[in-house]
Amino acid sequence: MFSVTVRDHMMVAHSFRGEVFGPAQRLHGATFVVDATFRRAELDDDGIVVDIGRAGEALHAILSELNYRNLDDEPQFAGTNTTTEVLARTIADRLAEQVHADALGAGARELSGLAVTLRESHVAWASYERDL
Amino acid sequence: MFSVTVRDHMMVAHSFRGEVFGPAQRLHGATFVVDATFRRAELDDDGIVVDIGRAGEALHAILSELNYRNLDDEPQFAGTNTTTEVLARTIADRLAEQVHADALGAGARELSGLAVTLRESHVAWASYERDL
Amino acid sequence: MFSVTVRDHMMVAHSFRGEVFGPAQRLHGATFVVDATFRRAELDDDGIVVDIGRAGEALHAILSELNYRNLDDEPQFAGTNTTTEVLARTIADRLAEQVHADALGAGARELSGLAVTLRESHVAWASYERDL
Amino acid sequence: MFSVTVRDHMMVAHSFRGEVFGPAQRLHGATFVVDATFRRAELDDDGIVVDIGRAGEALHAILSELNYRNLDDEPQFAGTNTTTEVLARTIADRLAEQVHADALGAGARELSGLAVTLRESHVAWASYERDL
Amino acid sequence: MFSVTVRDHMMVAHSFRGEVFGPAQRLHGATFVVDATFRRAELDDDGIVVDIGRAGEALHAILSELNYRNLDDEPQFAGTNTTTEVLARTIADRLAEQVHADALGAGARELSGLAVTLRESHVAWASYERDL
Amino acid sequence: MFSVTVRDHMMVAHSFRGEVFGPAQRLHGATFVVDATFRRAELDDDGIVVDIGRAGEALHAILSELNYRNLDDEPQFAGTNTTTEVLARTIADRLAEQVHADALGAGARELSGLAVTLRESHVAWASYERDL
Repeated sequence: MFSVTVRDHMMVAHSFRGEVFGPAQRLHGATFVVDATFRRAELDDDGIVVDIGRAGEALHAILSELNYRNLDDEPQFAGTNTTTEVLARTIADRLAEQVHADALGAGARELSGLAVTLRESHVAWASYERDL
Repeated sequence: MFSVTVRDHMMVAHSFRGEVFGPAQRLHGATFVVDATFRRAELDDDGIVVDIGRAGEALHAILSELNYRNLDDEPQFAGTNTTTEVLARTIADRLAEQVHADALGAGARELSGLAVTLRESHVAWASYERDL
Repeated sequence: MFSVTVRDHMMVAHSFRGEVFGPAQRLHGATFVVDATFRRAELDDDGIVVDIGRAGEALHAILSELNYRNLDDEPQFAGTNTTTEVLARTIADRLAEQVHADALGAGARELSGLAVTLRESHVAWASYERDL
Repeated sequence: MFSVTVRDHMMVAHSFRGEVFGPAQRLHGATFVVDATFRRAELDDDGIVVDIGRAGEALHAILSELNYRNLDDEPQFAGTNTTTEVLARTIADRLAEQVHADALGAGARELSGLAVTLRESHVAWASYERDL
Repeated sequence: MFSVTVRDHMMVAHSFRGEVFGPAQRLHGATFVVDATFRRAELDDDGIVVDIGRAGEALHAILSELNYRNLDDEPQFAGTNTTTEVLARTIADRLAEQVHADALGAGARELSGLAVTLRESHVAWASYERDL
Repeated sequence: MFSVTVRDHMMVAHSFRGEVFGPAQRLHGATFVVDATFRRAELDDDGIVVDIGRAGEALHAILSELNYRNLDDEPQFAGTNTTTEVLARTIADRLAEQVHADALGAGARELSGLAVTLRESHVAWASYERDL
């Protein structure tokens, strides 16, 4: 099994609902360093898992829709805590849509899975992985 | 599949028995930077894998019992080489006990697995993963 | 010249005023990984620059007053852009006050300088250094 | 499941054939920071996955055959793009040969799998994993 | 004294002349992770050292002229070993030209100095710093 | 001003005397990731600060005398707390002796200064810098 990973980041504000979050129930923020991993059983004829340029652009475009925003004001997240875990799934699912829409090239149809990791600090991170 | 990871560290002395260890048979020491990963198939109603605050406290408590000690003097490790691999399993198994004792909250019963990675330097690390 | 550095972090929301900030004029957020460096010409009788335990606690206390907050709502920053640079100076100046108030121990009077670095992502950071 | 990882690096020149590579079709180069991971279900009697000294030497020997070279001139890669993915598989397969030849010790016969990750920059990396 | 740093990278081929370089006399390559630091005594009215967006673009433009190239073929480096140290100075001097040409904004005239660090691997790096 | 840095590490046991050290008065241990920086005003005719191969070997030889040892048993440290700061100075002074003995080559006589940083964990490090 092969994989390729590209890294980017976004800087957002948000707050959480629920006692479990303690002081993070207040409006605060985070830099999320985002690693998107693409998995594939065999390489294509060029010797790659995916066009890494397109993969990076797809990730950047997805993050740009969230970057420099207060996620509490985004209708798409109404009623949802935008935890690191939830954001990892959101980004992975949007990357999957891009793969299925051939935005990463026709070869990307051979990808078998995706994983997205969001690092919220030097001591905490979360991941979500899914099939394609 | 989702996961959340928290990082902490401990600083211990120890020595190893066995020719394979070469100069590490002498009493020496290590800083272990410890990453504890909690896995879960679905998020809870708060949108999280586990209460990250409690997870970090559970890890810190386990490391505190080993930190700033000579592991050669700890009865719990009598007759055992406290290799990076063995310590990864020890910490993972103690975290599993804490999960099963509801120390990470009732929601942690839904966790499916744990992984613990100990980084002993910038060029070497070991991991142990297990089901819950 | 000797120095000792301790690392901690904070997660805040804020916005900036001024065209130069582009999309960062919107309410957004950041994780700042904060490195506080203490400088001293000679070591004390214990062989240290500063009591690293107290230094870490002083830094943590200062960050706790800002952590999990929207800095736009903090009266102390009214009329000020809370840029990475400004926050580095704020934290350094508060550490200097703690040093002068002997909160880091009487030995800390021998410190000659401080530097504070805030890493806002894996690709950008800012520092402020000052004498004591 | 246990694993142990060792890190080393190599610095090579190469070029790629195929429009997908854009400017990387020109002769350029890369530092690859290489992480080799050895997996095993149970520890041996010494409490280890593998003799980490021998594992590091085996990895270093394999990288030495590629290091400080123009991979375009290496007959072994004739007709092959030496992408990060391809190099990860090459190194993993050579490590597997070393394991099977007992170069990592007789105990290494119990290893169940290998993974090799090549980091080509702070924002991109690729991995290949295989059974043993 | 304040500073702001931005990080980018480039991937180049080159060879060195001189016995001191050993096997690096052969054509090989490197990924250079490049950190450009801008220093300034006081912040401007916006609370910044420099427009970080423009600073990042200036660095990226300078690296783009070298990226994905064999530096042995670049006339600008004829008769010069493109060591990590030489490249750090080259990039710093080009950034200085951009500052003096107001490419980073009129405010950048207040910058007092620059430093450029090139990381060639996880275990080696070089820096050059100069006044403005 | 130019500088070049090489990284290596050592794993030692030790204990400290003095109430300020709290639990670190017990025998414990540390991995020290060691960065040795060599400074020089101008490059030599090869375009380098120092022969990085020899610099790395000199650092490795110095660390080898301390590595895999209990520093409490080393006569050279009798009556001295082997704090991170003290070890940084010890290593820097030994590197300076090597420079003065031409072990890094005759060109190293032009070096103007040295700095040594010891990282004891992901959240704490110490440095010592001196002239040559």
